[in-house]
Amino acid sequence: MQGYEKVNVYGVSFDVSSKQPIVLLRVEGQNRFLPIWIGHPEAAAILMKLQNAELPRPMTHDLLASVIGQLSASVARVLVTELRDNTFYAVVQLETEKGEEIKVDSRPSDAIALAVRTDAPIFASSQLLDSNAIEFDQEVGEIEDIVKEFRDFLDEVSPEDFQAT
Amino acid sequence: MQGYEKVNVYGVSFDVSSKQPIVLLRVEGQNRFLPIWIGHPEAAAILMKLQNAELPRPMTHDLLASVIGQLSASVARVLVTELRDNTFYAVVQLETEKGEEIKVDSRPSDAIALAVRTDAPIFASSQLLDSNAIEFDQEVGEIEDIVKEFRDFLDEVSPEDFQAT
Repeated sequence: MQGYEKVNVYGVSFDVSSKQPIVLLRVEGQNRFLPIWIGHPEAAAILMKLQNAELPRPMTHDLLASVIGQLSASVARVLVTELRDNTFYAVVQLETEKGEEIKVDSRPSDAIALAVRTDAPIFASSQLLDSNAIEFDQEVGEIEDIVKEFRDFLDEVSPEDFQAT
Repeated sequence: MQGYEKVNVYGVSFDVSSKQPIVLLRVEGQNRFLPIWIGHPEAAAILMKLQNAELPRPMTHDLLASVIGQLSASVARVLVTELRDNTFYAVVQLETEKGEEIKVDSRPSDAIALAVRTDAPIFASSQLLDSNAIEFDQEVGEIEDIVKEFRDFLDEVSPEDFQAT
């Protein structure tokens, strides 16, 4: 994936000042993190899967994953592509049974909630990471540590500050 | 659709006592209504579409509709099939480009949020309606009227009462 770096979902946290959930993506093998502000239902959808919550009925992203599978397609990967006018953009790349690749415009939150359900890899644009990822000097451990680190940072910024430059 | 009756989304309301949203389905050409308790995000997803809210980015059910379309399939219809152990069940029936029909298990809320985005017809099981629909003697008009009528009813019942008999 030229121009992209593989990322993993490090966790979901909560920005106390904006009262909005954040999903933290971590660049694989690095101490760089990309925070993305997302909606409450999507945060819940990601967390549920990360915590392996067993639910009696399919939630919306489970239905989405199930529809893709039943239409003989799969999620090849999801890409977090850019940040424009305070909005993060993503693309879900599907592969059909014929091997055809299809790109679907998505919010990152939906794309990530889908990726964690389908074990699809997530990539973030190198350019986006260069402008918006936060690097830690020392190894970070628990989600609580990183949230604490982010909190100091978040005290000074608002989602509006995350503008593409 | 044998054993099913065509219904339309009459509106989304709020059950004050349980603090849970309700979607009201109305049997076509009749004064019979089926209330289904749903989640907040799904209620918002249905309402947004009913109110033709223009949003800059696709919401989760828009993504679902878009994925189905891009995989050359369409939503043939959605069925609200039954109420079992206090839970309403639904099926999304997809049609592939080859004319193949595929059934996907869904919560009614997701199925309805998808139907209103794809102009797919909604059907409810006659048996389910016989047990759980509420009939009004006189013509009902505005959503406010029916909500008021429902409120009297809802004061006496809880979602747990909506059990299949």
